[in-house]
Amino acid sequence: MIKIAILGFGVVGSGTAEVLTENKRVIEERLGCSYSIKYILDLRDFPDSPFGDLVVHDFNTILNDPEVSIVAEMMGGSHPAYDFSRACLEAGKSVVTSNKEVVSNFGVELCRIAAEHGVRYLFEASVGGGIPVIRPMINDLASNRVRTVNGILNGTTNYILTQMRDCGSSFAESLSEAQKLGYAEANPAADVEGIDAARKIVILAALASGKLLSPKSIHTEGITNITLLDTAVADALGYTIKLIGHAEVYDDGVMAMVSPRMVTKANPLANIDGVFNGILITANMVGDVMFYGPGAGKLPTASAVVADIIDIIANRDKAVKPIAWEDAKAEDIKSFDDYVCRRVLICQSAPALPNDVKVLKSCEVNGAVAVVIDTVSEARTSQLLAALGDTVIATYRTLA
Amino acid sequence: MIKIAILGFGVVGSGTAEVLTENKRVIEERLGCSYSIKYILDLRDFPDSPFGDLVVHDFNTILNDPEVSIVAEMMGGSHPAYDFSRACLEAGKSVVTSNKEVVSNFGVELCRIAAEHGVRYLFEASVGGGIPVIRPMINDLASNRVRTVNGILNGTTNYILTQMRDCGSSFAESLSEAQKLGYAEANPAADVEGIDAARKIVILAALASGKLLSPKSIHTEGITNITLLDTAVADALGYTIKLIGHAEVYDDGVMAMVSPRMVTKANPLANIDGVFNGILITANMVGDVMFYGPGAGKLPTASAVVADIIDIIANRDKAVKPIAWEDAKAEDIKSFDDYVCRRVLICQSAPALPNDVKVLKSCEVNGAVAVVIDTVSEARTSQLLAALGDTVIATYRTLA
Repeated sequence: MIKIAILGFGVVGSGTAEVLTENKRVIEERLGCSYSIKYILDLRDFPDSPFGDLVVHDFNTILNDPEVSIVAEMMGGSHPAYDFSRACLEAGKSVVTSNKEVVSNFGVELCRIAAEHGVRYLFEASVGGGIPVIRPMINDLASNRVRTVNGILNGTTNYILTQMRDCGSSFAESLSEAQKLGYAEANPAADVEGIDAARKIVILAALASGKLLSPKSIHTEGITNITLLDTAVADALGYTIKLIGHAEVYDDGVMAMVSPRMVTKANPLANIDGVFNGILITANMVGDVMFYGPGAGKLPTASAVVADIIDIIANRDKAVKPIAWEDAKAEDIKSFDDYVCRRVLICQSAPALPNDVKVLKSCEVNGAVAVVIDTVSEARTSQLLAALGDTVIATYRTLA
Repeated sequence: MIKIAILGFGVVGSGTAEVLTENKRVIEERLGCSYSIKYILDLRDFPDSPFGDLVVHDFNTILNDPEVSIVAEMMGGSHPAYDFSRACLEAGKSVVTSNKEVVSNFGVELCRIAAEHGVRYLFEASVGGGIPVIRPMINDLASNRVRTVNGILNGTTNYILTQMRDCGSSFAESLSEAQKLGYAEANPAADVEGIDAARKIVILAALASGKLLSPKSIHTEGITNITLLDTAVADALGYTIKLIGHAEVYDDGVMAMVSPRMVTKANPLANIDGVFNGILITANMVGDVMFYGPGAGKLPTASAVVADIIDIIANRDKAVKPIAWEDAKAEDIKSFDDYVCRRVLICQSAPALPNDVKVLKSCEVNGAVAVVIDTVSEARTSQLLAALGDTVIATYRTLA
């Protein structure tokens, strides 16, 4: 009998208990072995929950119980989630998590500690909620070199952008609507400023490149400055605005960023609306594959957590190769300034562009003039924007 | 050093050799061990191919060489592909394949023989070409009960339907175009009559239910009768026509079918165009997840074949649990007559429907009258169609 402990009985923690219980029969049948939840760690008590009897308040009860072999960390935040995870791994317990903050900052170290102690640290639920993407990247795309990753990685911002486009409501109104529906938190900063997406794209970039960037170090723009003029321009030019986590993998390095982009309507990411997420991976043999589904939510995220638990149980007697990644060193990090893509400039009037900048398309919307310019680097874009000054109202990278 | 043999040096076979060679360094690095292709079996010689020296014409050369531990069967057709696969498994060699005809007809038997001989029979490439779907279904959705599968499983027919919708060309014209581009074979029957999709949906239904239906036994309609009137009606009613492999999984059985459907434009499958495939899986915890990508083609399909080879090499010293499935018995097969969904009837004039049939929506297109009727069973639909007689020009299941 495998004994599992859950750290944190919030949305995902309680969902994990629910999935483990609701699908117990079929999961045990698939595994050919049985399991039970032994403890749930939380500061609170849950007298009305069917799992209320399992609640403990002292982490050491779990840490010191040799019967517990798998710990599901669903606490959120870096501390004490990181510290507890580390302690469990050092005590020879495998850990699964949905905590992108911990994985993106301490993932390499925790995987190394896990390997040193013959246990595992898995985090399928940390990116894309219930969408299978981490294990498929590691296993199914193992025959490929991944070249780029483009992901709609945050359901809150995607809901807001969908509302702005489809209902013509402003950012503030759409955010407020998202909060009413429970899609956005009271303090939405981590979502709307792109911080959550940054944590997720560095994890995906690391799986593709073997190098984990610090989420704080990558270029990160959120969606707070997007206006209805921008969404109207996007529509006029055949785009839709999405917050995109983007990673480029080179033979000798990696680059990642988060920013709103104007995505051409033919791109499969353009059709991913509302709270759904999608991750489009371009690899050298398979070409484009996309994984789509619920990027958050109690049961979907718990579904991925439990998939990791099943993986650990199914392979409990085997030596499983740990993820081959390390923290990115300075020489692994490709310059953001050199990144090139097509750009949209939204201007007060027709912009006076240098001759070497090629305009591919333009439109007028509500008195503003928007132009699509051919691929320019980030560095060159900064120069252009400085030269154009106040003429430029907004600028967007595009995604073909 | 792992030695691999490839059976059949056609499109996928040569692609497999190319992926194994092109990405050799990165794959060997991931595996921590090296491999080589020792033989390629084909009736022909390939003097101009870099792999020409590996070609053999006698299957026994491979079968009797104890150095060969993995065989990639890319021959197509049932025989001798099945016979060779079986012989390899019985000789203690693992087999990977892209051959949906063999998997859908003999998959249970071949997996059982593999397990009996301590080797593996894997077939990721048999459904969805390069799209990771089989391994993710087995591993990542292991925490779920899969309830329904809806898939665009055939790129040829999806290309034809996209052409008909977007260019207004007839079925015959679109098929001819697909043949010119190499997307359809000279004899396109297996594609356009839905036979290829039927083989794939029974494989997916089996992974979800544990019961493999015979592909010949399921209700299978192709796309040969679809007209431009139908595509115009679909558009007017907010649908797009797709050839859908559909499976329903019950606690005590399974049902699968292939037919064209009018798919609501909000369904992510509605946006999958051209030769791309998509598989939308609804499961009890995660909800809807979709896997999207190239459903055919040399390198994409080979990418999935090589992922299976990597899986076998990575787990070569471990006892891996075989797929838990068996051939469906009569009592496992749910009645097609009982299947219910909303229907579209395209009629010469307004149809005289019984009072208990609820019309949800209607439109007139080119003199024809189309109605969307609320959920009715297959059996009841047959009665309705018989009663309406020649009034009905065409009828479609819908997909919400």
